[in-house]
Amino acid sequence: GFQFVRKKDMARWLVVLITGVLTALVACSIDITIESLSSFKYQWLKECTDKGVLTGVLIVPFLLWAALNMGPTLIAAILGSYIEPMAAGSGIPQVKCYLNGVKVPRVVRIKTLVSKVVGVTMSVLGGLAVGKEGPMIHSGAVIAAGVSQGKTTSLSKDFGFFEYFREDHEKRDFVSAGAAAGVAAAFGAPVGGVLFSLEEGASFWNQALTWRVFFAAMMSTFTLNLVLSAYNGVPGKLTYNGLLNFGKFDDLTYEIWEFLPFLLMGVVGGLLGALYNYINKKLTGFRMKYINTPWKKIVEALGMALLTACVAFFMIYCMDDCREISESAEYPIQMFCEPGKESAAASIWFQTPEKSVRALFHDPPAAFEWLTIGVYFVFYYFLACFTYGLGIPSGLFIPTLLCGAAWGRLTGILIKFMFPDQDWVDEGKYALVGAGAMLGGVVRMTLSLTVILMECVGNITFGLPLMIVLMVAKWVGDFFNEGLYDIHIQMAGVPIMGWEAPSLSKNIYASEVMNRPVVTLRSVEKVSRVVSLLQSHTHNGFPVVDSIPEDGQASYFKSFGTLRGLILRSQLTVLLKHKVFNENTELWQNSKVDIHLFRQSYPRYYTMEEVELTPEDLNMTLDLRPFHNPSPYSVMACTPLPRIFSLFRALGLRHLVVTNDNNEVVGMVTRKDIVRFRMWTHKGRMGLEELVIYNQVA
Amino acid sequence: GFQFVRKKDMARWLVVLITGVLTALVACSIDITIESLSSFKYQWLKECTDKGVLTGVLIVPFLLWAALNMGPTLIAAILGSYIEPMAAGSGIPQVKCYLNGVKVPRVVRIKTLVSKVVGVTMSVLGGLAVGKEGPMIHSGAVIAAGVSQGKTTSLSKDFGFFEYFREDHEKRDFVSAGAAAGVAAAFGAPVGGVLFSLEEGASFWNQALTWRVFFAAMMSTFTLNLVLSAYNGVPGKLTYNGLLNFGKFDDLTYEIWEFLPFLLMGVVGGLLGALYNYINKKLTGFRMKYINTPWKKIVEALGMALLTACVAFFMIYCMDDCREISESAEYPIQMFCEPGKESAAASIWFQTPEKSVRALFHDPPAAFEWLTIGVYFVFYYFLACFTYGLGIPSGLFIPTLLCGAAWGRLTGILIKFMFPDQDWVDEGKYALVGAGAMLGGVVRMTLSLTVILMECVGNITFGLPLMIVLMVAKWVGDFFNEGLYDIHIQMAGVPIMGWEAPSLSKNIYASEVMNRPVVTLRSVEKVSRVVSLLQSHTHNGFPVVDSIPEDGQASYFKSFGTLRGLILRSQLTVLLKHKVFNENTELWQNSKVDIHLFRQSYPRYYTMEEVELTPEDLNMTLDLRPFHNPSPYSVMACTPLPRIFSLFRALGLRHLVVTNDNNEVVGMVTRKDIVRFRMWTHKGRMGLEELVIYNQVA
Repeated sequence: GFQFVRKKDMARWLVVLITGVLTALVACSIDITIESLSSFKYQWLKECTDKGVLTGVLIVPFLLWAALNMGPTLIAAILGSYIEPMAAGSGIPQVKCYLNGVKVPRVVRIKTLVSKVVGVTMSVLGGLAVGKEGPMIHSGAVIAAGVSQGKTTSLSKDFGFFEYFREDHEKRDFVSAGAAAGVAAAFGAPVGGVLFSLEEGASFWNQALTWRVFFAAMMSTFTLNLVLSAYNGVPGKLTYNGLLNFGKFDDLTYEIWEFLPFLLMGVVGGLLGALYNYINKKLTGFRMKYINTPWKKIVEALGMALLTACVAFFMIYCMDDCREISESAEYPIQMFCEPGKESAAASIWFQTPEKSVRALFHDPPAAFEWLTIGVYFVFYYFLACFTYGLGIPSGLFIPTLLCGAAWGRLTGILIKFMFPDQDWVDEGKYALVGAGAMLGGVVRMTLSLTVILMECVGNITFGLPLMIVLMVAKWVGDFFNEGLYDIHIQMAGVPIMGWEAPSLSKNIYASEVMNRPVVTLRSVEKVSRVVSLLQSHTHNGFPVVDSIPEDGQASYFKSFGTLRGLILRSQLTVLLKHKVFNENTELWQNSKVDIHLFRQSYPRYYTMEEVELTPEDLNMTLDLRPFHNPSPYSVMACTPLPRIFSLFRALGLRHLVVTNDNNEVVGMVTRKDIVRFRMWTHKGRMGLEELVIYNQVA
Repeated sequence: GFQFVRKKDMARWLVVLITGVLTALVACSIDITIESLSSFKYQWLKECTDKGVLTGVLIVPFLLWAALNMGPTLIAAILGSYIEPMAAGSGIPQVKCYLNGVKVPRVVRIKTLVSKVVGVTMSVLGGLAVGKEGPMIHSGAVIAAGVSQGKTTSLSKDFGFFEYFREDHEKRDFVSAGAAAGVAAAFGAPVGGVLFSLEEGASFWNQALTWRVFFAAMMSTFTLNLVLSAYNGVPGKLTYNGLLNFGKFDDLTYEIWEFLPFLLMGVVGGLLGALYNYINKKLTGFRMKYINTPWKKIVEALGMALLTACVAFFMIYCMDDCREISESAEYPIQMFCEPGKESAAASIWFQTPEKSVRALFHDPPAAFEWLTIGVYFVFYYFLACFTYGLGIPSGLFIPTLLCGAAWGRLTGILIKFMFPDQDWVDEGKYALVGAGAMLGGVVRMTLSLTVILMECVGNITFGLPLMIVLMVAKWVGDFFNEGLYDIHIQMAGVPIMGWEAPSLSKNIYASEVMNRPVVTLRSVEKVSRVVSLLQSHTHNGFPVVDSIPEDGQASYFKSFGTLRGLILRSQLTVLLKHKVFNENTELWQNSKVDIHLFRQSYPRYYTMEEVELTPEDLNMTLDLRPFHNPSPYSVMACTPLPRIFSLFRALGLRHLVVTNDNNEVVGMVTRKDIVRFRMWTHKGRMGLEELVIYNQVA
């Protein structure tokens, strides 16, 4: 009754509240662990380097650096290869697939969460060109899935809470709230989080859901700011500027004609992003082919950690860019500079990537020479590109922003050189624009990224240039290839459903898309037939019909009986497992055969091996009528693809029955049949293609 | 081919670009006209008042004031009552209905736009408690509709552009972009604009569409800032703080325990909002009953203009609150104060409501005495409440914000009184929170309003308290009644479709909702029958069947023939008008009978009177098969309401055919049948009700 409606609604708010708070706490613990351990690491390195410079033996600090990089990387690689391969990478492609309706296995398990959290801490600590933001978003998604189900299958513990949320649709809604909370915790950007979750996950806009997503994001930001303000020694001061990821840009002004350089930077960002994606795509193909065992992956990750240390050390050793010791460098390295000065190249390497972004945004003018930044950009661009796709938990946002900030600041220096007398040239501003352009060029999101960047730097008036730069970068990049997340999803062979039916698919009809022959079940069916069908077919949905026509009458649109309903594999296995047969009605009539029975086993239903049936059972009959869905969505054979697409996309269907004029089943369309058709655009041309989908993913 | 796909896509971007720019230009012209004319008005009033105080004859300035209020109000009232009643009010309810899929007549016509723009300028100039923001949003919607269609039916001019956008779905997408551009222009809030248009209009989230909406909003903000910066004498300085509607809050800090007063203010906002809506609902009912002719409406508006002048004058006359002449008051009135001082009460009345909001937000501490603000709040609350719903173009946002800012500042003064030694008490901050709470309590939007307010004051860190306050205000308000826009939509009897099927409607089936008997057409039908059916029925969609069974066989689920397709009234009238009959094939076979024929007459199709047929024509036959939709969406009679609801909501259906097991038509469900079922929640109880819908609206 209405009491239940209200109770369920309250429970929903409670779940998102808990999700928001827990996500923020996880994010905080990652933040603080990285902060303290890396402070220890760089302090040690600094002392060792200073000593090495004095004695002239620089091999010791180099070896120490290599060891300090490779140690944590080893842990991260073991977690991401042996323990839980699903924890490798940024997690955003997986969350995107999950929200799109693809059931990727193990994405939202507790084991994945733990591996991801520990792993990403170690990756960042290992000095690799990785960020922690993507994994935080993935963590939020896992936490939401866990909290909403009130049980964990991995630890086989059922708390009995929130039983009524145990269905795909509800769970997915909570996961989208968790992802938003993750963004909010990673960047301190609640509005950006909501938009991210809409941009990546939503198909059907739902007011009430969006509010809950917003609430989760809000609670996450609040908890994060509360904990971090206490950690920073200003408890309760929630507007403390140090809480902003990339520091506050206070007065970011721009003149109208600055749009010209901004536009050009957007173009450059798009080009660099497209190149980045191209290289990474080739590399990923190579990795799928050759680096396919955990051992190889671990070795590769260790090699990359070593390479990073080499590059950094080589650059510090060679670059002769001395400057006054600035405030932002926590571990100033003198190297070969005069006393009282520090090496600028060392300062940019001796910190986490996030702090490097902050330094490039906010360090005073002329803090870096153009050569230092130029060399740094070239090295870091390729390091970041090679690093993404290793078998370790690793985010993409921060390294991309860092590359962009580097060439953005370089552009600022160049403009300053061209117009030395102008006071509006702010290197930090150009670093910000460059970071936005680069990120837009690589991941190709616009709306949410704009808002996230605005919230990260605490400035609204600069939103307009950021939007334009991101949009231009996206357009330019889209001319060459797709966003990096989409590339990885495609290469994994996961069938993602687009936003709209592909153009020019109007003349493709249901009759061409559907699967035939169809395996149908009678309303009252023999148990033996059900069992043998389940064993011999992998279908997840079976139309229920009155009677199955003889096989003799062969025609193109052969009928498989008049449609009466649709029953799912999961329902059939539950019915078989609990022996809900006609002949032993007295056994189950009194024990409640209701929705709880089906919810109990969610989300991992019984396999056919787990269903134990005696020979007597096989002779019994199963009445499907009380359990099947009596009014499944169906379309006629002459329905064009765009209409079918809308049904799948907007209603989140997985099975659609195709009927003839007399409402007889002639075929079945599943999600996989639809996503095969994809429109491609490449260098100004477009076309329609049919993809080959791996059979493993459904 | 693909060329066309690309061309259409380019055209879409072009349309939103033009829409954004034009919307901003309209908004600018409203802004600037109000600014200059009201400056003239208040200058004249000030001189007259100063003279009146000296000579002691205050009746002259009072009469002048009354006249200066009633003059512009008269123009606004004539526009909003006689010329175009659709231009009255804020326009947001109408835009909301339009985006929801209700075809409200005359909402997006040029005549409405002109009446609205001139009318709202006059309303604000008339000193009424109205804002210009709602009408600006409506203007954006009209501009988008006009630009996208490339023709105006009102001026009967067809430019021939964008013919391919002449269908409901495309047009609606553009209108949502126009509404976003309107918000962006009204508040300088592009992200808020996108969220507003999603919150109010979207049903199916579409990535590409959202980007275009964002682009429109962005171009609108850009154009607005460009024009206004030139008007303010700082051309090209797009970050000029004066462009922010309510002035920039630079350092808005808050402590964690300040959430307590914020929460309480949220509750107060919710209560005041619910009261506001209650009073306005009663008043609207009264107006619908008694003030139903244009003359009465004009008199009412004039009366309200007079009342506003009386209240203002009375308050200035009585309140003894003198202060140093501050910078924010442009027309300082000395009244009975000492020389060098001004009357605070006069300063708040002698400006447009928008500037009053700004003054309450930013004036230095102790600029207003508590008594002045208290009295002002009481008067203004009722004035604003009475004014909304007059037959003049009038926005709701600014008056509501102003009420909220008044009691918010009052709260600030109170807290300052309680904790006199604390330096964190900022009256302006509390005014902002109060404004948010009040607005949330009245209109009950949360996500978009939070972002709009954040963008209006140029501050991100204060987003969190604003969100919480808005959400609490919404919750408290929702306990008592609905948002003001929804109340007005309901009272107009417009069937708005909610976001989700009402709870507990699972046991309502298609067979209970559908309309019977169904008027069906044969695939090849006699013209005379088509004509007589169109004349005798108002249905907009007719199922096409093979043959219509005899009337004799009466059963509950009487069949009306096997479903073959669906044809729309508009298609039939076009076919009749152009005499596309079987017997005169040679006449139309060569002239192209294609989609252009149907697009030409969009959106106002022929009425039956316009179709002229000779008696010979009536004897001819019409073959519907090339024109009907051969695969209409259909459901079986046993489909529960939530499934039908999803179809209508997600796919934007207007007609759904209900069939029996043999695919024979047994009923029709239209949008109107669905929206009848509504869940109400009131003071903690809920239930399901069936509404009575007026027959005039479809």
